[in-house]
Amino acid sequence: MTKRVAVIGAGPSGLAQLRAFQSAAQKGAEIPEIVCFEKQSNWGGLWNYTWRTGVDENGEPVHCSMYRYLWSNGPKEGLEFADYSFEEHFGKQIASYPPRAVLFDYIEGRVKKADVRKWIRFSSVIRWVEYDADKGDFEITVHDMENDRVYKERFDNVIVASGHFSSPNVPEYPGFAQFNGRIIHAHDFRDAREFSGKDVLVVGASYSAEDIGSQCWKYGAKSITSCYRSAPMGFDWPENWDEKPALEKVEGKTVYFKDGTTKDVDAIILCTGYKHYFPFLPDDLRLKTANVLATADLYKGVVYNPNPKMFYLGMQDQWYTFNMFDAQAWYVRDIILGRIDLPDAATMAADVEARVAAEAKNETDNDCIVYQGEYVKELIADTDYPSFDVDAANEAFFQWKKHKKQGIMTFRNNAYVSPITGTLAPAHHTPWKDALDDSMDAYLQN
Amino acid sequence: MTKRVAVIGAGPSGLAQLRAFQSAAQKGAEIPEIVCFEKQSNWGGLWNYTWRTGVDENGEPVHCSMYRYLWSNGPKEGLEFADYSFEEHFGKQIASYPPRAVLFDYIEGRVKKADVRKWIRFSSVIRWVEYDADKGDFEITVHDMENDRVYKERFDNVIVASGHFSSPNVPEYPGFAQFNGRIIHAHDFRDAREFSGKDVLVVGASYSAEDIGSQCWKYGAKSITSCYRSAPMGFDWPENWDEKPALEKVEGKTVYFKDGTTKDVDAIILCTGYKHYFPFLPDDLRLKTANVLATADLYKGVVYNPNPKMFYLGMQDQWYTFNMFDAQAWYVRDIILGRIDLPDAATMAADVEARVAAEAKNETDNDCIVYQGEYVKELIADTDYPSFDVDAANEAFFQWKKHKKQGIMTFRNNAYVSPITGTLAPAHHTPWKDALDDSMDAYLQN
Repeated sequence: MTKRVAVIGAGPSGLAQLRAFQSAAQKGAEIPEIVCFEKQSNWGGLWNYTWRTGVDENGEPVHCSMYRYLWSNGPKEGLEFADYSFEEHFGKQIASYPPRAVLFDYIEGRVKKADVRKWIRFSSVIRWVEYDADKGDFEITVHDMENDRVYKERFDNVIVASGHFSSPNVPEYPGFAQFNGRIIHAHDFRDAREFSGKDVLVVGASYSAEDIGSQCWKYGAKSITSCYRSAPMGFDWPENWDEKPALEKVEGKTVYFKDGTTKDVDAIILCTGYKHYFPFLPDDLRLKTANVLATADLYKGVVYNPNPKMFYLGMQDQWYTFNMFDAQAWYVRDIILGRIDLPDAATMAADVEARVAAEAKNETDNDCIVYQGEYVKELIADTDYPSFDVDAANEAFFQWKKHKKQGIMTFRNNAYVSPITGTLAPAHHTPWKDALDDSMDAYLQN
Repeated sequence: MTKRVAVIGAGPSGLAQLRAFQSAAQKGAEIPEIVCFEKQSNWGGLWNYTWRTGVDENGEPVHCSMYRYLWSNGPKEGLEFADYSFEEHFGKQIASYPPRAVLFDYIEGRVKKADVRKWIRFSSVIRWVEYDADKGDFEITVHDMENDRVYKERFDNVIVASGHFSSPNVPEYPGFAQFNGRIIHAHDFRDAREFSGKDVLVVGASYSAEDIGSQCWKYGAKSITSCYRSAPMGFDWPENWDEKPALEKVEGKTVYFKDGTTKDVDAIILCTGYKHYFPFLPDDLRLKTANVLATADLYKGVVYNPNPKMFYLGMQDQWYTFNMFDAQAWYVRDIILGRIDLPDAATMAADVEARVAAEAKNETDNDCIVYQGEYVKELIADTDYPSFDVDAANEAFFQWKKHKKQGIMTFRNNAYVSPITGTLAPAHHTPWKDALDDSMDAYLQN
């Protein structure tokens, strides 16, 4: 086989793709040459923490949107690899909401075992990708940052696994240019201790707002104010946390809300989401989609319909994460290996339409969880990715939602059953709100 | 004439280029089609202030390195346009160290008068440039952000005017990943009031360190500590400003210096300079140079020797700024118009060598000022850019250096003689340290 496959990104999705090919090779299949391009100097994608904000050491936008003291905001039982359980990695079952360093170690453990690091070119920024219709392949322009050298290579397939939680959506509100405090997007939030003693406004009502507000609260912010456009998060907030309707403007250090109330704040943290961003892709290859469960233009959620030699991993809004990326990566691998045939264009377009229509019928979060769980089942049914108890993972998510309602600052003290090994996680040794040390050593002392 | 010329960037350099061509057209010359690509939604380059940090509304690295309350750190008499004096723009002579908004207005005034905005495509990011040796022209790939559309166009010449004070050089020191405060590069500094009451460390000993430290001091920082690798800035600092040798590491909120002393700080501002950064250029077109007066590879400081159809403006380290960009833009224009012939490659290479050798002989800052003044004289002698009294501009710089030594917080209270109109600037109505309102209205109330 002389095929060459480019994987863009060595985060959870890209690494899943490398592991998928390595797994096939291990079982005796002939696989293409795989080249994974990673702009950071290490793997892990979002999970590769950096203190840097803005642009990185090479002048490229910082990929990392994570912050210190981040613990998983969903149960690990919802994201466990079917081919590599937490128990296999840590030699024991661990508590259900691991901090970033623990999850990074887990992600890394599987791909170290698979020995796929040799396929990755680090500090390598994709500058441009073009499809050559005459030759039927892709030309990729790469900037090798270590040697400050630009080169081109050709590939038969391109798999975009660059994520979509790295390029911030940053709205402007009247008065921002004159605000006398700090304004950052969640993407640039790093250490909650910077906000100790401060009055903080978090703009937004989704996961970033909830979690960054909670971090600031945990590490001693004087007050948290959050504000929403459509609906409040509606948790039972601590007494120094106020939820307000939409931000309208700022003046000096005062922020004004739609209900006419105001608050003086030291910092505004924009938890206003992320954008799909592919600065290296021309119009005919660039996915344009909202952050939804049924992405536009992707057959089976992965094949780019306008050019089915191109694939996208993990471009959905996500309840399922690592294990869904696995399901996708195995599926893409099998298309490339010729194990799965693609239908005609009309069928592929109809597949997307059907997914969009089905998503529209979801009414509750639990509906959405089931919907994405069914998608995972659908993909893994067609490959040799180890089957796992998706319904048990759904159940962990249901419990998680319930526990959040019961206590937004206590939900991480709960434990769930692994859908892979069937074992119940131990309770963590310290309640989340009192666990100020987020190191792996501290976490694993169960 | 059917030539097409691309200008990359609509900051002071790019706008100088547009004005240069418009000036020729105004005098009856036939000029090429000029297309200026600007990634921001307005002109002014660095002088186009934004509250944004990190990436902009389109996900591109923010260009602006300026901050609120920035006043020119050198006398306006050193940068005055020879074809458009401050007196012409404001209808009167103004004080010598204008705030950003005043200088933005001045830059804009000239190009509004020249009516060149129609040549600029805003929110247009250059993705890639290639030289086509067969056709002898350039193919430019542009991302039109407003319409999210990528297109290609061909040009006979490319003039890179994208600046080199936008992509920060961000070193890492041991302990940064665990520092319990804020770490930013000068590029992301915006409002000094955010640091009111704080202990601030500025790392570096050049203009950013000096000016950002001074801003923080002026707006109420508790203390400023600055640190240097090679030599202290050596000004007569206020009593709550300490100058230290090199930073060695940080632990918690404590920073450690090479002399064994420590300091607890709330924020670290890295005033560690910028890098020449051209992510849109392949190896054969990409300038690689240090930030010096005699740039590598540029004949007359503007012609890219490896491909003399390509030009760079303003890539030097700068004492002279706007007026030097003008001198360069007029010179490049005249090469493109065929008014100035390029010598052979060996002569062009020798020109660079001679400049590098001459720069090496400079011993003092005043030597450097004279060196760059001579360069400006050399260029304007060959074009119809209005001759002006470069020696008078040098003199303003000499006085400025002297006034800074006399008082780093008072030097902006001085006034100098215009090299264009010969008039002495008025003293400003308020000493800089007491002038907290940096608006144009406030400044012009002389």
